[in-house]
Amino acid sequence: MSLLCVKVKRGKLHGPSDKFNTYVTLKVQNLRSTTVTRRGNEPSWEQDYMFEINDLGKGLVVEVWDKGLIWDALLGTVWIPLRNIEHATELPLGRRYRSLKSHTTRFKNGYFPSTIQFLNPLA
Amino acid sequence: MSLLCVKVKRGKLHGPSDKFNTYVTLKVQNLRSTTVTRRGNEPSWEQDYMFEINDLGKGLVVEVWDKGLIWDALLGTVWIPLRNIEHATELPLGRRYRSLKSHTTRFKNGYFPSTIQFLNPLA
Repeated sequence: MSLLCVKVKRGKLHGPSDKFNTYVTLKVQNLRSTTVTRRGNEPSWEQDYMFEINDLGKGLVVEVWDKGLIWDALLGTVWIPLRNIEHATELPLGRRYRSLKSHTTRFKNGYFPSTIQFLNPLA
Repeated sequence: MSLLCVKVKRGKLHGPSDKFNTYVTLKVQNLRSTTVTRRGNEPSWEQDYMFEINDLGKGLVVEVWDKGLIWDALLGTVWIPLRNIEHATELPLGRRYRSLKSHTTRFKNGYFPSTIQFLNPLA
């Protein structure tokens, strides 16, 4: 069994600052963790997570969601194969940013795409 | 455009009551809504949701999660094709339960499978 350590650092969102209230979910195997929700187009989550991994053949799914009153909208997602994550005996390994696949997301003032960069998966 | 209305009613979980603290997520297109978290093996969520649907070729993904201190564990999931959901001009259509595909989920006292029944998708 391996222990996967992930630090969710911050994001950079394309769009006006007052339009975003975002959180990040991490999913691996049948487990999920969710950060707090942060306002603005440069959200700083700075939260650490750990997962017990039995199967290195799977992946870590990272999603960035914009919290709404009626529903939450997916802004971006990335799939990181667990085999690609470095193994280490101590933390931290250093900062590594991941570029998320963007989704078109709807707001009251129209449609616009968002792209996001962030994350620091450590193992 | 169609308006999808969903009422998340309650669940029945296989396992001891004090082991569960569950919530439901509904995902359709790039949107998501999440219920409150309820304790026990017969959780009653009783919450209503609405989604604007542009593409009836997709599906509604329902997931039941058990909230944990470190991570949340997926208990069950079901995919409901939007084309299979009845259209109506008024609510409610009546109660329809869906059986969720179960997942093996881990607890401190070992492994056990959970199955869940619930839900009332109205359209």
